[in-house]
Amino acid sequence: MKAWLSRLKADLDFIPASPEELARFELSHALPELDCKLVPDPSLGEGYRLERTGDQAFTITGGPSGLLYGAYAFIQRSLAGESLPDFLESSPRYALRMINCWDNADGSVERGYSGSSLFFEGGRLSYDPFRMRELGRLMASVGLNVLCINNVNVHFPAQLLLEDALPDAAALADIFRPFGVRLMFSVDFSQPMRHGIPTADPLDNAVRTWWKETAARVYSAIPDLAGFLVKADSEGRPGPFTYGRNHAEGANMLADAVRPFGGTVVWRCFVYNCRQDWRDTKTDRPKAAWEHYAYLDGQFADNVILQVKHGPFDFQVREPVSPLLLGMKKTNLAMELQLAQEYTGHQVDIYTMIPMWREVFDELPSDRIMSLAAVSNLGRDDNYTGHPLAAVNFYTYGLLAWDPDTESLPAVSRWVRLTYAFSDTEEGKLTELLLSSRRTYEKYTAPLGIGWMVTPHDHYGPNPSGYEYDLWGTYHKANRDAVGIDRTSSGTGYLLQYPESYQRKYENPETCPDLYLLFYHRLPYAFRMKDGRTLIQRIYDDHFEGYEEAKAMCTVLRTLPFPEPDRQVILSRMDLQLGNAREWCDIINTFFHRLSGAEDENGRKIYD
Amino acid sequence: MKAWLSRLKADLDFIPASPEELARFELSHALPELDCKLVPDPSLGEGYRLERTGDQAFTITGGPSGLLYGAYAFIQRSLAGESLPDFLESSPRYALRMINCWDNADGSVERGYSGSSLFFEGGRLSYDPFRMRELGRLMASVGLNVLCINNVNVHFPAQLLLEDALPDAAALADIFRPFGVRLMFSVDFSQPMRHGIPTADPLDNAVRTWWKETAARVYSAIPDLAGFLVKADSEGRPGPFTYGRNHAEGANMLADAVRPFGGTVVWRCFVYNCRQDWRDTKTDRPKAAWEHYAYLDGQFADNVILQVKHGPFDFQVREPVSPLLLGMKKTNLAMELQLAQEYTGHQVDIYTMIPMWREVFDELPSDRIMSLAAVSNLGRDDNYTGHPLAAVNFYTYGLLAWDPDTESLPAVSRWVRLTYAFSDTEEGKLTELLLSSRRTYEKYTAPLGIGWMVTPHDHYGPNPSGYEYDLWGTYHKANRDAVGIDRTSSGTGYLLQYPESYQRKYENPETCPDLYLLFYHRLPYAFRMKDGRTLIQRIYDDHFEGYEEAKAMCTVLRTLPFPEPDRQVILSRMDLQLGNAREWCDIINTFFHRLSGAEDENGRKIYD
Repeated sequence: MKAWLSRLKADLDFIPASPEELARFELSHALPELDCKLVPDPSLGEGYRLERTGDQAFTITGGPSGLLYGAYAFIQRSLAGESLPDFLESSPRYALRMINCWDNADGSVERGYSGSSLFFEGGRLSYDPFRMRELGRLMASVGLNVLCINNVNVHFPAQLLLEDALPDAAALADIFRPFGVRLMFSVDFSQPMRHGIPTADPLDNAVRTWWKETAARVYSAIPDLAGFLVKADSEGRPGPFTYGRNHAEGANMLADAVRPFGGTVVWRCFVYNCRQDWRDTKTDRPKAAWEHYAYLDGQFADNVILQVKHGPFDFQVREPVSPLLLGMKKTNLAMELQLAQEYTGHQVDIYTMIPMWREVFDELPSDRIMSLAAVSNLGRDDNYTGHPLAAVNFYTYGLLAWDPDTESLPAVSRWVRLTYAFSDTEEGKLTELLLSSRRTYEKYTAPLGIGWMVTPHDHYGPNPSGYEYDLWGTYHKANRDAVGIDRTSSGTGYLLQYPESYQRKYENPETCPDLYLLFYHRLPYAFRMKDGRTLIQRIYDDHFEGYEEAKAMCTVLRTLPFPEPDRQVILSRMDLQLGNAREWCDIINTFFHRLSGAEDENGRKIYD
Repeated sequence: MKAWLSRLKADLDFIPASPEELARFELSHALPELDCKLVPDPSLGEGYRLERTGDQAFTITGGPSGLLYGAYAFIQRSLAGESLPDFLESSPRYALRMINCWDNADGSVERGYSGSSLFFEGGRLSYDPFRMRELGRLMASVGLNVLCINNVNVHFPAQLLLEDALPDAAALADIFRPFGVRLMFSVDFSQPMRHGIPTADPLDNAVRTWWKETAARVYSAIPDLAGFLVKADSEGRPGPFTYGRNHAEGANMLADAVRPFGGTVVWRCFVYNCRQDWRDTKTDRPKAAWEHYAYLDGQFADNVILQVKHGPFDFQVREPVSPLLLGMKKTNLAMELQLAQEYTGHQVDIYTMIPMWREVFDELPSDRIMSLAAVSNLGRDDNYTGHPLAAVNFYTYGLLAWDPDTESLPAVSRWVRLTYAFSDTEEGKLTELLLSSRRTYEKYTAPLGIGWMVTPHDHYGPNPSGYEYDLWGTYHKANRDAVGIDRTSSGTGYLLQYPESYQRKYENPETCPDLYLLFYHRLPYAFRMKDGRTLIQRIYDDHFEGYEEAKAMCTVLRTLPFPEPDRQVILSRMDLQLGNAREWCDIINTFFHRLSGAEDENGRKIYD
């Protein structure tokens, strides 16, 4: 049993009949000394109520999966050594708490760093049932309830999930059902064209009929399917634009098809021009989602959810919250996070995300959205997440999807205590290391919100000009005098997509928070920061500090009594991270030194 | 029938018994009106003598393949409309005139831009016999006599050419023999280890014995095999260094094995540190070959040939001649050229090489080498070379390997006349376009000998800093003030590897030929060129000119009556080239503008 589940002690060698049966199994094995009574109460839905009824006796009341969530919450508190409450009532803030797997039918995982797909191999569903049950427990233990098993880029033959492979998919849905987990499928908007229909126009009757019949067939096999996830008109995917239709017309057509069965269409808003000419300074990629969707606010069906990445670019280490999440007030919204460390070290570098997510929620009232999704970081590696410490992201994501007010420190601290049998001091050290890991990574990579200084395509390692003359709309335009894109009203106007209070916070470089400075502004290297340092000196300082912090992380990790095989994996990846941090630090500093000619005020070595 | 062979009119639908029979066949079909007598004279070897014996009567005298070369020379002059001489005697300057195919057993071609391999498919030899005969004619018609069919990077199962696939290889050798073409194999230095020998140490007796027995077996199947081609200790290939041996020890061991059979070992000198730290300014990759080989001068066996790339880097658009070719006076040398347009536009951009080769021979007395090799630009595309006009490189390479004094203009002009039925004016236009194509390409790509500003790995398209922080030892270190590497005595000392007269020509930036300026020197952007322009203005001018020249090429090509399918391929690739030229021009200019801040004196648009 893996990740934080290792403390549950008992393997799950059968498919439980119901969440309640599973809850009984978990409680009896994890806490045999306690007397826990389970009282079904469907009116509580996914929520639960926990009451102490004696010194060692408790009652958990809840709907079917609520009982299970209550049991896991109880078990985790207990195993983490927290005092057990006399009374606790909890229910999830968001109805859909989703994991999006970018798994392809051939078994590869797009942006996957944990081995091959858990679900697919050789063009078809192929999995280890034991690992499916472990995954079910991993999800249920933190309250996640929707699993989209296939990549949003639907490459053939993944379309067959709605066709020949549907019986196999239904069998997989059966496995996950007792864990309170419903499946979801990514669908190919042009799929009717595989069946002799000459168009995929969402207003075409044959197309609408095909989707309705398909939905009926799919839902008769999997009655509780959560719905369809769609990436349309994005990075080469087909979509409504081909037929001169807007995305409301596209999404609503699918929504009509799944509505009779209670299904939802989750429609991704990741649409931008990925063939931008670098010479074009008018187009500014972060503006794209707003331009494509904001005018459609109020036009989406009630069973459509627009899924918006948390920032306007694409999961960079620092981005402001997407203006679309703030602005679309008459539309169901889900926010998309990414557990897979695509731009953040490929699960080699340690990068704990919850402090970043908290910053996002600081800007975003949690009721602006109604669901949360995260791109999976799981794969067939023994430890599921490639790097053992990357599991903290999956775990804390679950807590946050249940309760977006979850704070970083207790969440990470509980994960550490559940996962490793450490002393309080050791637990404290690892928790602190994890909580600071994102700031460290941010320091040694692209500076102050600028993003994108990664190697194109694989997105691993530094390449300060890698995207500068490319087609992806991600430019910093650093020259001998200045760096950055002016996104204020005097520049591309991106900032104008935000509410006024937000604009005021960021529009003036003198008052804009430092860490967002180069996201919003183009500034000369001699620009004076609030603390009196020049911009270039701040860049140098951050990079030297980031590398030093990586060294310190390495020292801390060596002192911690990780069990094998975690210890070996963690230490060898830390060595790689240290090498990465040195390359990042030196390359970014040299890049800016070559441009600016400025020397480090503290005389540290910057290479020619 | 393809390329310049189209004028031969007759398909070759049988395997001729001998070069003489083939010569008769070609003469009778191409020039039926002439009475040509063939008189064997083995004393002439590969040479031939051509004598007019009547108005329409000629005698060709020669050794077996000499008769064939004489016939082709005669036919070509005739078909190209040149007046036929009363007397002509010719023999090749170099004994081995080699084509090196970088074809893998799986059918892929490393750095191949003309389709898949002509020889391999699915792990084994697999070819169209008709195309083999066409290839034989293509080679024989320009006097090429050695064909190495497999990649110098010997990936499994290409090793089987010396093992299970030997009978198939022998059958292929049989096909090529009547064309005067002998096969050669690239061999894997570690191949004995596939057979239970725990080492590939060249001084180990078991290893020596294995190679001797293998050579005996191979030569009993293919008695006229030209020999073995070896890439050792280079870019990850195994070699003598693993065992603490030098390359003379490695090459001589193989030479001993093939000597009894008259075989040759062609040993490539492409050895350098391909894991260089970009921070290391002491190591300078062009110095590597000299450092690895010069001290071994005189220690190689007489049937070893060191094959040295023409420049010290790797087939950039402009490199000086390799100092190794000038300096190793007691060693058999071959010079390696590259017909495949790896760094020169992938057979999309038009790039005629013979003017570049002529420049190399201007620096290199032609008797300093005893053989010539070229990396093939052929593949399974209908036209063999991807771009129809790329065939000029294969053709003129053959002429140059026969006679290194061959001049560019008549060679290209003859190829045009043989290939297309053009008027004199049209022939003149195309010849001029081809002859200037390399200077045009040079102008719009990396400036003044600096090289390497290509996209890493695939080597297509501009990326001015693509290799700047990489491991390949190819840096320009451009900063806000200056660009280039000082390779003189005051810098890395690379120039000291040359004879003194050569050093004098290049050591002073004031007198160094412009086109080599940034190969040898690091210079400020304000450096004054001989013509009074600043360095930065020269860079801008060259790039704008190069793009304008590409536009002019496009205009010329549209006026020429190419037959289909050539016309369609040529014009559509020209459109791509025009796009490439624009990207190169704008990106390189913007790159240097961002660094230098200098404006174009002529006010042309340089993007931010």
